[in-house]
This record gives sequence, structure tokens and C-alpha cells, in this order.
Amino acid sequence: MTTKREQKGSAVDAPFLKELIKIWRVHGINGALKAKSDLDLLEPYILDGEKGRALPIIGDPDPDTLRRLELFFHAVALSIERATGVLIQPILNLQYEGVGRVVLISGRLIVVNKQLRDGHRFGFDNLAKLAEAGDKYVSDGIALIRKFPDVANHWGYS
Amino acid sequence: MTTKREQKGSAVDAPFLKELIKIWRVHGINGALKAKSDLDLLEPYILDGEKGRALPIIGDPDPDTLRRLELFFHAVALSIERATGVLIQPILNLQYEGVGRVVLISGRLIVVNKQLRDGHRFGFDNLAKLAEAGDKYVSDGIALIRKFPDVANHWGYS
Repeated sequence: MTTKREQKGSAVDAPFLKELIKIWRVHGINGALKAKSDLDLLEPYILDGEKGRALPIIGDPDPDTLRRLELFFHAVALSIERATGVLIQPILNLQYEGVGRVVLISGRLIVVNKQLRDGHRFGFDNLAKLAEAGDKYVSDGIALIRKFPDVANHWGYS
Repeated sequence: MTTKREQKGSAVDAPFLKELIKIWRVHGINGALKAKSDLDLLEPYILDGEKGRALPIIGDPDPDTLRRLELFFHAVALSIERATGVLIQPILNLQYEGVGRVVLISGRLIVVNKQLRDGHRFGFDNLAKLAEAGDKYVSDGIALIRKFPDVANHWGYS
């Protein structure tokens, strides 16, 4: 019953990247995305030396960058939900010039709290770094929910 | 040593309203605010029948309304800080048509979590209702911090 996997060991096997790819496919309502390979979908997250240098130090994020940010943290949220069974709500609050904050909320617990200083440059050196960053948010979030389960399950507005 | 207070028993004696007035005075960098009485400063929060009916059911909040919302929750945050000694950060995330959310954060605890559905109509029937609403947020926030002090003092970003 062991199926040989064609891509075994490739970077896109990382659980976080799989979640991220899935989300891009779900949100890809236009045909252009459907035709793309997994690697092509993640390519915009890679901001290596040359691409990075081409971006201004200070700038407003364009809609594509905002979407990358949003779906990245969406993937973090879903991965945490999957592991803990606890619902997560994301709040993305980006202000002028890429400065802002992302919080992922569960009940009254802030599961992830990320200050953004250069949101318009949101990217990673390579796929491994992208996977590592996502995994770090996910594992920290899971640890916090397990540490404070009462708060994560404390819903209700005031 | 008992000083007779002229306004004893008046609505603006409520602790929350005093905090709110103080914040308006601190933020009032233009001379126009300085000349206003306490009651005049709070007047824009009062949205009684006639004024309320003049507003559309659905609409985008204007800058004055946003400022009222912002300073209201600023006053809530400061009142909670004063009572608990714990620092509070407000996040106001208003999207299209007055729909959005206000969260007040302390460490990893969401001290206040308010969904807004008609932020462009943010107001109260009278001063007593304004004071009551503010006090409710403050006392609920204090109670939550006292219930989960570890979370309120859990700082650090991930």
C-alpha cells in the first residue's frame, strides 16, 4: 500500500507549503492560476537578492503583495485550525507604507501577533525559508493555544 | 476640606466620560476645541432619534465619525490601563460601509472585541447611555485581565 511519490523530498512537500498551495488553488477563480504548477504559484513569495534590490525601501504594498500576505497568514490560520480544532480569525491591518500588523485570533487569545514594517517587500530568500517561516508561526500558535486553552475557547464579544 | 462641586451629580461626572473629555482635550490641537465646554465636546456622540434618522442605514464613516470611534475606544483603553496597570494597544480596523472590528490588546489577550456593523452611525441616545457603554467595556476588560493575567502579561511577537 505504499505509493511511490514522484516529488518525494522536494521543497513543496513541506506541510505548510502544501496548505499554501491549496489556498491559492481555492482562491484562484480565474483560469490563469489553474494552469500554473505548484512552484509557479509560490514563485511570487521568493524575493531573492536581485528582485529585492529592485524594490524601494519604503513603499505602499500593491494589491498582489497584499494578497500574498493575506493568503500566507490564511495558510497559517488553517494549519493551526487543523492541528488544534480551534477556529482562527485573521485580522490584517496594513496602513501606509507597508507598516501594520497581522493578528490571528482564537477566542480571546492572540495566537499570532506580527508587526509589519515593510509589508510591501513581503518575501523570502527561497522556498525552504518560506516553509520555515510558515512552520514557525504555526508551531508557535499551536503551542500558545495548548498553553492557554481557556482563553482560546473564550468566545463572545463585549 | 470638602469642596462644593458645582456640577455634582451631572452626567459628565461619570469616570468614563471624564476620561473621554480628557482625551478630547489632549488631542484637541486646534483652538476650536479648547473653547468648547465638556458637554459640547461630547455632543457629537449623542445620536438621538432625529439625528439618527437623518443618517443612511448603510454608509461610509466620515473622518469625524472615525475620530469619535477611535477616541471612545482610546478612553476605554486608558481607563483599563489605569485600573490594572497593564498596557493596552488598540487596533481599529474599519472596512467598507462601517463594517469592521475594534480590538484592544494586552499582551496576547484580547481585552475588548467589538464587531462594528454600522460604524458610520456610532452614537448613543444620551450621555448616560454613552457613559454606560464605556463603563461596560472598561469593567468587562478589567475582569478579563484579572481572569487571565498570564495572557495579558505575555508579550512578544511571533
